Amino acid sequence: MALIVQKYGGTSVADATRIKAVAGRVLGTQQAGNQVVVVVSARGGMTDELIALANEISASPPSRELDILLATGEQQSIALLAMALHEMGGAVVSLTGVQAGILTDSVYGKARIRGIRPDRVRQELEQGRIVIVAGFQGADEHDNITTLGRGGSDTTAVAVAVAIEADVCEIYTDVDGVYTADPRLVPNARKLERISHEEMLELASLGAGVLQSRSVEFAKKYAMPLSVRSSFTDDAGTTVCEETQAMEDMEGVTIRGAAFNKNESKVTIVGVPDQPGVAAKLFGALAKDHINVDMIVQNISHDARTDMSFTVAHADLKAAVATCEGLLGDLGAAEVIGDGSIAKVSIVGVGMRSHFGIASTMFQALAEAGINIQMISTSEIKVSVVVGAEQGEEALRVVHDAFNLGDEPDIVEEA
Amino acid sequence: MALIVQKYGGTSVADATRIKAVAGRVLGTQQAGNQVVVVVSARGGMTDELIALANEISASPPSRELDILLATGEQQSIALLAMALHEMGGAVVSLTGVQAGILTDSVYGKARIRGIRPDRVRQELEQGRIVIVAGFQGADEHDNITTLGRGGSDTTAVAVAVAIEADVCEIYTDVDGVYTADPRLVPNARKLERISHEEMLELASLGAGVLQSRSVEFAKKYAMPLSVRSSFTDDAGTTVCEETQAMEDMEGVTIRGAAFNKNESKVTIVGVPDQPGVAAKLFGALAKDHINVDMIVQNISHDARTDMSFTVAHADLKAAVATCEGLLGDLGAAEVIGDGSIAKVSIVGVGMRSHFGIASTMFQALAEAGINIQMISTSEIKVSVVVGAEQGEEALRVVHDAFNLGDEPDIVEEA
Repeated sequence: MALIVQKYGGTSVADATRIKAVAGRVLGTQQAGNQVVVVVSARGGMTDELIALANEISASPPSRELDILLATGEQQSIALLAMALHEMGGAVVSLTGVQAGILTDSVYGKARIRGIRPDRVRQELEQGRIVIVAGFQGADEHDNITTLGRGGSDTTAVAVAVAIEADVCEIYTDVDGVYTADPRLVPNARKLERISHEEMLELASLGAGVLQSRSVEFAKKYAMPLSVRSSFTDDAGTTVCEETQAMEDMEGVTIRGAAFNKNESKVTIVGVPDQPGVAAKLFGALAKDHINVDMIVQNISHDARTDMSFTVAHADLKAAVATCEGLLGDLGAAEVIGDGSIAKVSIVGVGMRSHFGIASTMFQALAEAGINIQMISTSEIKVSVVVGAEQGEEALRVVHDAFNLGDEPDIVEEA
Repeated sequence: MALIVQKYGGTSVADATRIKAVAGRVLGTQQAGNQVVVVVSARGGMTDELIALANEISASPPSRELDILLATGEQQSIALLAMALHEMGGAVVSLTGVQAGILTDSVYGKARIRGIRPDRVRQELEQGRIVIVAGFQGADEHDNITTLGRGGSDTTAVAVAVAIEADVCEIYTDVDGVYTADPRLVPNARKLERISHEEMLELASLGAGVLQSRSVEFAKKYAMPLSVRSSFTDDAGTTVCEETQAMEDMEGVTIRGAAFNKNESKVTIVGVPDQPGVAAKLFGALAKDHINVDMIVQNISHDARTDMSFTVAHADLKAAVATCEGLLGDLGAAEVIGDGSIAKVSIVGVGMRSHFGIASTMFQALAEAGINIQMISTSEIKVSVVVGAEQGEEALRVVHDAFNLGDEPDIVEEA
């Protein structure tokens, strides 16, 4: 008997018919001899409807109240799914985020999970019940309802899985696994059977869009295996697990996949004095305004001045530029330039650690295609470049082909 | 400075425009120097929509899950009203039933309030905030979300008013006060300036429909004055307060109003042995099945057998008949007859205590109109009769006229 957490997204519970289909799958999992906890999102489109409703009243509603409004989306989903399971004869109980013991900080709209009190979930499981938990939401220490931001239901699922020491956390979505690149943009993209947490983390944070990156971080930290699967098929999907030497050797793969992100904007501060404390002041101010910064690039200085560029989510561009402009005098910098028209293409693979020349292969391929690189950033297992938005999709296909990601990997027989 | 609780029903918060109007009224009350707590219902029609959604999945959804679903209605209302107040510059916080400390029993769908922990509401008021509380909902001792049943928001409002020791509880609705009879049925019905808790309680439980009867019970028990007003006008409405001798003398009124209820059905058990314990067994079984019984009539017996009749809500007729049929053998009774086609007409007034002949005036008027009486039941300040559904509205008008309820009362000057 295994203890399984399953997470279903908004598309999977969009209407009564789909909710019943999910209920069938959940009940089947329990009847196969497992204990099951299910985490669900709001029905597809509902969050947007609620935001529209709020905007009829206020262009910028207070975030605490918006969270109370949005939390009703998942609360409706858990009740409806519980009804469907009950109708099929399942023993079931639904729990809101608060009831499931999801404790968060008080940053409304993008709260972080601080801990989970899993007592209630455990008790209900011991009673033989399927437990349905509302994703995306929790409560702070004063019992105020909070939401975790878009994609937060993945994080709820992994956090619950970790807290109850589940054997696996299955993420059901509208795609059937993790691909070497987005199949809508790269026709020969290939589904991966397995990927390490670390690689998935890079792909998630780079905008591969299948999993929310905080959820992968959580899974990596606690070595929780994830299974990314389609709720519409019975295909095996992709397993996200701890990196093993065997995994790398067997597949003989250096690059696992290529990611594409056109949801970021670039901010450049021109003519920053090259002296200690500048970056701390700048990024401290952005953090204080709850603006998440992704790539940061600073190059060598000329005449004791340098340019500093970073990327943020489109939605934060205006706020980020405003924050920077407020600091111009303080920093002694010349000017702030915001650019909403960029795309980011990245390659990811743990094999990079033991192979040379990966980055130059990427740059060469882009150069041959006549694509200009605006920013470069690298980590141990990732190389990212920013290009003009209009060349973004082409850049993705060029890079995907340069590493032959569409081919089946050669299986090297173990000696 | 007064401490005022205001309750707005679903019609008053049905859309963005009306929510803004309510916000204006609430803010005006605060700016006039008062502390304000607002209790709101779900937007008009939303509860029915949610029930329809549930019924797409299950014809009889489990009541615990239905409560979780329905509770989202008020949760959306509190958030939207808080946004509207914030937009107007008001300091405001919204609280769900659980957050506001509304503790109930565990009878899902018609839970009763057991107590209120008003600490959070008090703290927020002390911070100068307008506090918005979700009506109709609470939580049991295990933090399960419960709902109080239709009209439960009135009860929430009065219970909160009592718990925080408010000066008055204002119930805003789509009518502008309490009338001598339903003005839609009786054209010359007159709005009452004042009515005692006790009279209002009889009218509420008799189906006058303006206030939920449990809310009036609460108000009576704790001597909380209620003000029933329209949310669309500035009229004074009707004050529901403690009975005073002056009130009765000044207006020289014996009958305060006439009520009409066509939402009940009649159940008759024929041929019940006239022996101790029968009624206890019968109504004990109905209570156990959570069926509320309204009128009960038992007449003298013939041949050691009697007939016992009672009325229940239409929705409970099938269940009540089933419960009784299950007891037939045990009781030694002959037969159960259910009748969904009745109407109840009642007259109410504290003046009845000191006047004779009230009941006979009523019966005489009905007899002259050729209306047959099926059941009679009286209390200290009320006389109710059950008639055929098709004659119900006529019976109401006949009774209303028999006591001249449409006329302005003569004001007797004090000596």
